[in-house]
Amino acid sequence: MELLKPGFTHEDFMRVDDEKLPLLADEVRAVIVDTVRKNGGHLGSSLGVVELTIAMLRVFDPFNDRIIFDVGHQSYPYKILTDRFDRFDTLRMKDGISGFPRRSESPADHFNTGHSSTSISAALGYAKARDLLGEKRSVIAFIGDASLINGLAFEALNYVQETQTRLIIILNDNKHSISSRVGGFSNMLAGLSANTFYRRGKNFARRVLGPKWAGRFERCRDMLKMIVKPRNIFDQIGINYWGPFDGHDITNAVKILELAKNYYKPVILHFNTVKGKGLPEAESNPTKYHQVSPAGEAKAKTWSESASAIAEELAMRDDRIVCFTAAMSTGVKLENFSRTFPRRFFDVGIAESHMLTMAAGLAAGGMRPWVFIYSTFLQRAMDQLMHDIALQNLPVVIMVDRAGLSGSDGDTHQGMLDIPWGRPVPNLEIYAPCDEDSLRHAMLKASKREGPTLIRYPRGKIPPKKLSVDARDEGIAMIHDGAEWALLGHGASVSTMLDIRDMAGRKGINVPAVYDVLRVKPLDMDILREILRRYRAVATLEENYIAGGIGEAVGAVIAEGGYNVRLMRFGVPDVCVKHATQSEQRELYGLTAENVIACYMKNEE
Amino acid sequence: MELLKPGFTHEDFMRVDDEKLPLLADEVRAVIVDTVRKNGGHLGSSLGVVELTIAMLRVFDPFNDRIIFDVGHQSYPYKILTDRFDRFDTLRMKDGISGFPRRSESPADHFNTGHSSTSISAALGYAKARDLLGEKRSVIAFIGDASLINGLAFEALNYVQETQTRLIIILNDNKHSISSRVGGFSNMLAGLSANTFYRRGKNFARRVLGPKWAGRFERCRDMLKMIVKPRNIFDQIGINYWGPFDGHDITNAVKILELAKNYYKPVILHFNTVKGKGLPEAESNPTKYHQVSPAGEAKAKTWSESASAIAEELAMRDDRIVCFTAAMSTGVKLENFSRTFPRRFFDVGIAESHMLTMAAGLAAGGMRPWVFIYSTFLQRAMDQLMHDIALQNLPVVIMVDRAGLSGSDGDTHQGMLDIPWGRPVPNLEIYAPCDEDSLRHAMLKASKREGPTLIRYPRGKIPPKKLSVDARDEGIAMIHDGAEWALLGHGASVSTMLDIRDMAGRKGINVPAVYDVLRVKPLDMDILREILRRYRAVATLEENYIAGGIGEAVGAVIAEGGYNVRLMRFGVPDVCVKHATQSEQRELYGLTAENVIACYMKNEE
Repeated sequence: MELLKPGFTHEDFMRVDDEKLPLLADEVRAVIVDTVRKNGGHLGSSLGVVELTIAMLRVFDPFNDRIIFDVGHQSYPYKILTDRFDRFDTLRMKDGISGFPRRSESPADHFNTGHSSTSISAALGYAKARDLLGEKRSVIAFIGDASLINGLAFEALNYVQETQTRLIIILNDNKHSISSRVGGFSNMLAGLSANTFYRRGKNFARRVLGPKWAGRFERCRDMLKMIVKPRNIFDQIGINYWGPFDGHDITNAVKILELAKNYYKPVILHFNTVKGKGLPEAESNPTKYHQVSPAGEAKAKTWSESASAIAEELAMRDDRIVCFTAAMSTGVKLENFSRTFPRRFFDVGIAESHMLTMAAGLAAGGMRPWVFIYSTFLQRAMDQLMHDIALQNLPVVIMVDRAGLSGSDGDTHQGMLDIPWGRPVPNLEIYAPCDEDSLRHAMLKASKREGPTLIRYPRGKIPPKKLSVDARDEGIAMIHDGAEWALLGHGASVSTMLDIRDMAGRKGINVPAVYDVLRVKPLDMDILREILRRYRAVATLEENYIAGGIGEAVGAVIAEGGYNVRLMRFGVPDVCVKHATQSEQRELYGLTAENVIACYMKNEE
Repeated sequence: MELLKPGFTHEDFMRVDDEKLPLLADEVRAVIVDTVRKNGGHLGSSLGVVELTIAMLRVFDPFNDRIIFDVGHQSYPYKILTDRFDRFDTLRMKDGISGFPRRSESPADHFNTGHSSTSISAALGYAKARDLLGEKRSVIAFIGDASLINGLAFEALNYVQETQTRLIIILNDNKHSISSRVGGFSNMLAGLSANTFYRRGKNFARRVLGPKWAGRFERCRDMLKMIVKPRNIFDQIGINYWGPFDGHDITNAVKILELAKNYYKPVILHFNTVKGKGLPEAESNPTKYHQVSPAGEAKAKTWSESASAIAEELAMRDDRIVCFTAAMSTGVKLENFSRTFPRRFFDVGIAESHMLTMAAGLAAGGMRPWVFIYSTFLQRAMDQLMHDIALQNLPVVIMVDRAGLSGSDGDTHQGMLDIPWGRPVPNLEIYAPCDEDSLRHAMLKASKREGPTLIRYPRGKIPPKKLSVDARDEGIAMIHDGAEWALLGHGASVSTMLDIRDMAGRKGINVPAVYDVLRVKPLDMDILREILRRYRAVATLEENYIAGGIGEAVGAVIAEGGYNVRLMRFGVPDVCVKHATQSEQRELYGLTAENVIACYMKNEE
């Protein structure tokens, strides 16, 4: 590396000669590709914005201005160039650099992200704070075209006109979201990019925006407006639209950004970029290279693969079954379903709320919709689950992927809330299978229910062998009997419970019974009461926040029934979950055999 | 009444002569005004759509086609004309007609609503179900201009193009939401209505769309397209836009709807209407007459009034405080704040998600945002509370109005989930004051916190005298000591607990201690443990779903600590809350002194 030498700082970056910037872009790309190959992470989006990030950092001060990345997939070049190059090899590792912007990590990160479409709202907040505090800084929302179609971003765009303050929205248009983008809005963007104004505008900008642009600002601004497509959605809702521009031309981008910096009103800058730029395989297959697993990670069967395969089987037998995803068909493994049943598959883009309400409409109209969604993104559609599905008791199945501790994506991506938020929702049944057999059992149950069902399953590999026991129309099933104490848990905790049992045997302490709480809601009260009569102590294990989990529910039953049973609860405490591997997270929050055994022995003293 | 005689049915409606329809409209209005004056309810929206509803019911079959009202404020004329005239005087009463569409009430109601902006998603679902099932019916989403700016509606609009199926969106543009409407989008709509195409189009439609319209359908369609404003947001995202039309001209509206019925693609019909039409005081003050309380309801000081007055006091002393509402400044009583601090007040329209994320941005930028929102609508922004506010530990105060049982608006409007959904959110503190003094105390605490605080308070009158006790930095405060058993509750339950104590005294049974759980999260464990050591039995009272409430939390502490305490839990069970008055609801779910005493005595046996 000629420029990116150890210790490379933001100050060094500011001293790089203009003509060396393309070389710097190449080096930044090489670092990203290298690190993501080792650590896993989001590749395509970051590769696509290297030049735009460089341009942005030449014009704006990341420590004084407020640059807000939407989602944050694309923040790796920014991290490298804002004093984090030396630590970048720790990307997504425990105690290392986060895969997303984090205020606690750097004074250059101004808003934590992870879920999409928050940047414009947050930037409007920063802009109004600046105005009210009499500050000067620039506020920039950096958002991709796919994030723009989420309702949150639209609510913010709609509100921009009311604020009439200085705000720069950089639209990074790579024509791809995580999967290919969806909807009328994206076609409209494509229309903007394809029109002849583009070429004319580009030539025009090159000709007019010479080196002495500063003094000619007012004139340039008017000229810029001429090159803009006359009427588009942004103009109509009161936001100045400039573009489209080439997002890989650093020199030109710097000039455009300088103009925007001095502009006195909200403006949206439309840049076209290529997702995966510079890595031929990523350019040609942007969906595959959106997120990359670390090299050498074994390719065992995942929960997502099992769930989608079973959904296909069910759909073969029931014409009413349709499947939904929100820009996640790769993540939840619905590609095959979409090929087999193209008319019965809906990818709505990053529009989780709409997805659930549209599913409710289909259910009301006689179909059986199955919605595949990550636990963390279900948080975006809880009112739709409550108001549109549960209150009407409609037969929608919510397949909640990545439930529980989900690893390196960090606190914004953990599946901690589906159970605490789902338990109080009326009419909803909740299942948390521990293996493929119980997953199938739960999905069969759900397919026959005349009401809503939520099935949550973890990230990663499905246990290769069967853990559960058969013949369980009961919501709680005994896997092993035991002495003195019993373990109650669901999903990923079942294999931990089996480990606890083994370890207890080896250590010569009381060997606990193991109960699989396949149906989390409603709890099977008959069996629960039987358990409470049989054992002196009960430990609950769950991979979700402990507040609102099954541990509390069991505690209430004990205290109401006057059972002489000592409760121990294991789950995720009231904290923001740190990024680390799943097993490191389990260690951190005490969801291990060692910790449960230690707590039991301490309690027995 | 000449037409609306007792027993008037939908069949009778279909037999009314065309020229009598304006008279029918007058009679429907009279019934609505009369009923709402007695029972309370939503007045303006329903008065504004009488003619449009009549036109719609002449063209579409409410039992076979699928008409979906957005929010449902405006469904009273529809209810009257679809076989519910005879029961309409029971509007919003226990066991009576709901104030919103309810599938369980009538086969003419196809989707339950209450929260805004669900209709287009639901209609898309119905339309796809129709296509997949090979049915023929028409599907109509009937949506107001204010609902259109919510992100959910936008996500649906964006997706319409992907479906390319028959769908009719009727845009009822009354230029008002609950308060006046907000944002760039509404200005765009105003632009569409104001332009000269409007008058030309109207004349044109009158001239061309004669009685023999049917055979000339294809030609008319092309002509209709000519009268449409050439490029607007709807066209750009792939939805045919027709309009604007006069929504009070029944004859013309029928013709437009017939055309749309036979159209083969998604189409949006833009009708201009006058909110409160026919009632001069409502026409001239649409915000005041949006919702009306029953005549004779006493005008005692409400929780909302106290909360906003205290916010003003705090804002006088702290320049960083800004206040937000989502189209609810009347409901949450922020009108005065907005006049006193116009630069520090934001009404974002029906855009709850954006509101919370923008507040997060302001907090990150150094301000102290206070967000005023009904409990039920906070369900729309839970991810923003979690992801944008709580994970960043930002000092945003969420003032949750109408928390708990909220009365006649029905199951979609109860404040059941703020506590169960809020308790697992990290960094969040939750307060539930029981009187003005403790409300002020909680708001002062919140104003000094460097993290997020949620303060929930009930609908209706604030207790006229002080119930709480002073000097309580503790999260739980003893109001009265007692013997043998203790009551723990928060908010509205505190006065019930005092009633229980009185009743126990009168009945000569053990008089319970009364503890006010002002801070619901984190629970004050020191005091809780002290209580569990002192009493043999503890009853928890809470106006929220019991799953995820404080009863479960207390149960877990009892079971973990091995306390010899019998727990009784009172709260709202796992049901859809029925519409009724608040006191009828408390009766129904056992949140009364009588029931708690009865349960205690039964337990003692």
